[in-house]
Amino acid sequence: MDNPLMLMIPGPTPVPQQVLLASAQPPISHRSPEFRNLMADLTADLKWLHQTQNDVLILASSGTGAMEAGILNFLSPGDRVLVGCNGKFGDRWANLCDQFGLATERMTAPWGKALDPEAFRLHLQAQPNPPIKAVIITHSETSTGVLNDLETISHHIKAHSSALIIVDAVTSLGVCPVPMDEWRLDVVISASQKGYRMPPGLGFVAVSPFAWQAHATARFPRFYFDLGKYRIDAAANTTPFTPPVNLFFALQASLAMMKAEGLTRLFAHQQGLMQATRAALRALDLPLWVSDDAIASPAVTAIAPAQIDPELLRSHLRDQYGVVIAAGQDHMRGKLIRIGHLGYMCDRNILTTIAALEATLSDLGYPFQPGIGSQAAARCFAQPS
Amino acid sequence: MDNPLMLMIPGPTPVPQQVLLASAQPPISHRSPEFRNLMADLTADLKWLHQTQNDVLILASSGTGAMEAGILNFLSPGDRVLVGCNGKFGDRWANLCDQFGLATERMTAPWGKALDPEAFRLHLQAQPNPPIKAVIITHSETSTGVLNDLETISHHIKAHSSALIIVDAVTSLGVCPVPMDEWRLDVVISASQKGYRMPPGLGFVAVSPFAWQAHATARFPRFYFDLGKYRIDAAANTTPFTPPVNLFFALQASLAMMKAEGLTRLFAHQQGLMQATRAALRALDLPLWVSDDAIASPAVTAIAPAQIDPELLRSHLRDQYGVVIAAGQDHMRGKLIRIGHLGYMCDRNILTTIAALEATLSDLGYPFQPGIGSQAAARCFAQPS
Repeated sequence: MDNPLMLMIPGPTPVPQQVLLASAQPPISHRSPEFRNLMADLTADLKWLHQTQNDVLILASSGTGAMEAGILNFLSPGDRVLVGCNGKFGDRWANLCDQFGLATERMTAPWGKALDPEAFRLHLQAQPNPPIKAVIITHSETSTGVLNDLETISHHIKAHSSALIIVDAVTSLGVCPVPMDEWRLDVVISASQKGYRMPPGLGFVAVSPFAWQAHATARFPRFYFDLGKYRIDAAANTTPFTPPVNLFFALQASLAMMKAEGLTRLFAHQQGLMQATRAALRALDLPLWVSDDAIASPAVTAIAPAQIDPELLRSHLRDQYGVVIAAGQDHMRGKLIRIGHLGYMCDRNILTTIAALEATLSDLGYPFQPGIGSQAAARCFAQPS
Repeated sequence: MDNPLMLMIPGPTPVPQQVLLASAQPPISHRSPEFRNLMADLTADLKWLHQTQNDVLILASSGTGAMEAGILNFLSPGDRVLVGCNGKFGDRWANLCDQFGLATERMTAPWGKALDPEAFRLHLQAQPNPPIKAVIITHSETSTGVLNDLETISHHIKAHSSALIIVDAVTSLGVCPVPMDEWRLDVVISASQKGYRMPPGLGFVAVSPFAWQAHATARFPRFYFDLGKYRIDAAANTTPFTPPVNLFFALQASLAMMKAEGLTRLFAHQQGLMQATRAALRALDLPLWVSDDAIASPAVTAIAPAQIDPELLRSHLRDQYGVVIAAGQDHMRGKLIRIGHLGYMCDRNILTTIAALEATLSDLGYPFQPGIGSQAAARCFAQPS
């Protein structure tokens, strides 16, 4: 298939050539010494990425599958859960909880705004009865481009309750710090097609000892997603069910590249891509949906253009210039565009995107000073990081 | 990773170079016209492979995940199910049913023997009350190398009950005929790393209209594995959750190759590989565990060598000659070896395996006439098919 399109969406993200080629090796037996060596490597490197001593388990599933596993393995029907809802993914997890008969409460904030840590503190201080068994937080809300203040929320939860902290880190892990141990997170979920810089198909669930305690008494029936099985097998460097070995090859290659870079440089680089994107959009007078830099997601930036139809802009950018950006989701469809800037990207990706965006704006008759966006991005990149 | 080993196991199976390279293309957006075209192609070709007009849905999961989806989407807690158990996988599905609180009955046969269709007929004719909601059959029992008589069992089920027929076709689909419509199967489960000739990571669930009726009233909670979501989205050539697009590329390439070959030639070829393997093992006087050709699986052949330690044979074959075969599973570990001969293999794979097996037998002091196995296999291949 011919694929000249440049992906600037919040997943799948671009994949390095060496990772793609690693995935194209002939499959190996998953019951072999070679596989056990591979599995040992992956487990060590995943702990490094999560900044944790906890178990990090690999599932053959999308991020949603991993999230379902990450919620249901630690709870029982009827348990009270509090879900942070300020976008499509927070809403999805609340729906999932409803679907499985949990007593779901929603802590909401408007789409495009951050969850308020104080609201969590007050709610938990009031000692709800029965106590809340788990708090579910979407760290980076991919639908809006908001980065919730997970560190502070987690601090309040641990200070005022014995609830588990379950985190959707799908577009934050590998993009900005998610130090699982330091922040005392209990369950951290992620997926391969985002910060991992590899194709979709793997989900990840990191589990704290406190969460394993809850697992021991959790009563949701489970089989394919029974994390207890994965834990036992991971300790022996194997898997309970046939793993997608080719994606495991890709993961190995990708984690090796990330380790060579180091977390500090990795996060600084991702931060730089976001800053340059935001500076360019501001210079172009395209309204950032999340105007407060303090809560801007390093994964994706949304704009809500007033003078120009977002869907027209998006399709023109794609059809004329081969740059793919994302639409708004759910009720924001047709009102937003979202530019992904996470994963394997360099400054050139941002400069190209802004140049193509300027060309599109020009074609569509939007009034602006040509070059002003590109210049703003370039100026960001020129600053010492 | 260096990978000189030749895989002769019942999955993962060897993958054609062009399928591996297809999977190494840069990911595309799963919300794009290109993806919708891909999805439309796959849906049409999957129906061809299943010989059906029914929906065939694609999941990001192993075969076990697909099987869990294929069972739970059509049942409610407490439903009576009858599971054919004559090997590890039949046992696994019965355990899964127990785990989820179904009223599970087991129709057993010894490992290495086929399920008795008559036993199903008698059981269902007796009109159990409450009626059995689903019968679960493993078509090709990968743990033993038995091909159950699915056609006859299905006939009896449809003649004497209103039960759903749920089939594990993981090592039969693409290997021998599984004509879903003709045999009136309701749910057919398969996985990518077997007859599909591609890497692991995708599960497939084909669903009849009768099964969709059951789905409408089935009460197991579900989210990631809710096939209703996949059905609605597949009709619009999309997916509810991020699909493993690189594996979708591989699937497209693989199905195109299979279609070029045609089902008749495909199945005859797979049958030929099995016959040559069996002829060689018989000539070598290595006792076939499934001695009756009528119930031999075209996916895998097990032998239970008496004069030689199976694990020693297996490790020598691997370490000296680079040919990987499978061990016995569960209580048969250390008692059996299993040679996989499904998927992308040609006559040469069998001749190589038998030659390496003869070399191994020779090294280990097993008395036999050198060349007799290879000759028997070659004689099979020389016959017009």
